[in-house]
Amino acid sequence: MTEPPSISRRALAAAATSIVVPSSAQAQAQAQGPAAAPSAATPLVVAMLVHPDMVLLDLAGPQTVFALMGAKIHLVGRTMDPVTTDIGLRVHPDVDYAACPARPDVLFVPGGLKGSVALMNDDDTLAFLSATGATAGYVTSVCTGALVLGAAGLLRGYRATTHWYVHDMLASLGARPERGRVVVDRNRITGGGVTAGLDFGLVLAARLVGEMQARRIQLVLEYDPQPPFASGSPDGAGPDLTQDVLRRRAPALQAARAATLRAAGRLGI
Amino acid sequence: MTEPPSISRRALAAAATSIVVPSSAQAQAQAQGPAAAPSAATPLVVAMLVHPDMVLLDLAGPQTVFALMGAKIHLVGRTMDPVTTDIGLRVHPDVDYAACPARPDVLFVPGGLKGSVALMNDDDTLAFLSATGATAGYVTSVCTGALVLGAAGLLRGYRATTHWYVHDMLASLGARPERGRVVVDRNRITGGGVTAGLDFGLVLAARLVGEMQARRIQLVLEYDPQPPFASGSPDGAGPDLTQDVLRRRAPALQAARAATLRAAGRLGI
Repeated sequence: MTEPPSISRRALAAAATSIVVPSSAQAQAQAQGPAAAPSAATPLVVAMLVHPDMVLLDLAGPQTVFALMGAKIHLVGRTMDPVTTDIGLRVHPDVDYAACPARPDVLFVPGGLKGSVALMNDDDTLAFLSATGATAGYVTSVCTGALVLGAAGLLRGYRATTHWYVHDMLASLGARPERGRVVVDRNRITGGGVTAGLDFGLVLAARLVGEMQARRIQLVLEYDPQPPFASGSPDGAGPDLTQDVLRRRAPALQAARAATLRAAGRLGI
Repeated sequence: MTEPPSISRRALAAAATSIVVPSSAQAQAQAQGPAAAPSAATPLVVAMLVHPDMVLLDLAGPQTVFALMGAKIHLVGRTMDPVTTDIGLRVHPDVDYAACPARPDVLFVPGGLKGSVALMNDDDTLAFLSATGATAGYVTSVCTGALVLGAAGLLRGYRATTHWYVHDMLASLGARPERGRVVVDRNRITGGGVTAGLDFGLVLAARLVGEMQARRIQLVLEYDPQPPFASGSPDGAGPDLTQDVLRRRAPALQAARAATLRAAGRLGI
């Protein structure tokens, strides 16, 4: 069921001197090595979906890494209306689906449970993601954004991760769920919940612009995390806290499950 | 040179049943225990400075934690004009300095090297911070925001931290520099560079609403970091990368040093 690996604009340019088409975007990026570092002439193009009720940190972590890479970032909205995020800050798209550059080096979908469910039920969004995901260099997400990629049919046959509290829903969308902070399978890169965006961003940066640049970005951001508690995962938090979070999120999780089953039906899974 | 510990509105209310004034805001918060949990009737009030060129992640990490605490958050601007952050997203203040609530439970200053230098040279900002900091429950910062607190005279005699690349400037502002991801000294809580905002937010949340709530927030945010590299600190990154970052930031660091010396002169340090 796996689609053939997509080939990015950048990879096509790199391949122009050769008739050998690399076997995956991941291999392409690695093969490019330092030559993949962005320049003023040909910056990497990153298309980041933005949507109402998204979790701002899901966007801001990766976006900060991409900005420090020197990438050209497009915030892509269903319309040009500003979207209000979980913490109330509004984000203005700079392009809509129709104006989003084709063949971006990276297509990225942030999460936020309520907003993700809305996208999973929106035909325009799924059509946009399906078309752009077929030509993007990397197809990526953080948090519940993976469910949206899955609903667009982009994770069928791919290993993937998402926020712990919806992780079991990935299988219904044809993905192969894998516990992991960042899961890489060919040109699909998915991150866990919310704060995984930084780990995700650095993993992707290393592939796009090389490990030394990724390490430099990590140093600039002083990303040397020291959480005061060990409760960032269900295992670390224990069953009581985990059940408490699941109870508080129960209606939203139920809506996500229903949207997942509808999407699976549409995809014929 | 240490100012007497400030007493927050909340602490004053708690103390109303007693003539014993707690010895520090930190002790107050801990003594309040579960009673300090916010309710719809009396949410915690958090005043977060926003300013042009601030690093959005400095704000968004702590703000996400405070929002999940149920706090009433005010984004406080020098004016009501939107401010443009490091990654281009604009943030709209909801109050200006004159309209900011007096005696907030938390006063917070985010960083961003260029923006911090501008604030350190702005009399209105320093007067606002000095006055509000004298009555706030906690006086806090992430990243280079500590330099701004220091320029307002709020760190004299306090242990504090900031982004590694300006850490040596704290001493000139009368603070006692301490290497640490989050440094707590009485009611001053300062975090390291950028991504320290999450660690900072959880440390403060534990004091304000109790450790169990902080652990729950950590689980919701899946804050179980797994950086792909160990280069989040100068020690981990090594001298070559560290020098590279210092070279790239040299003009901004020089401006920060000049602003620090001017502020020290004004403070008579």
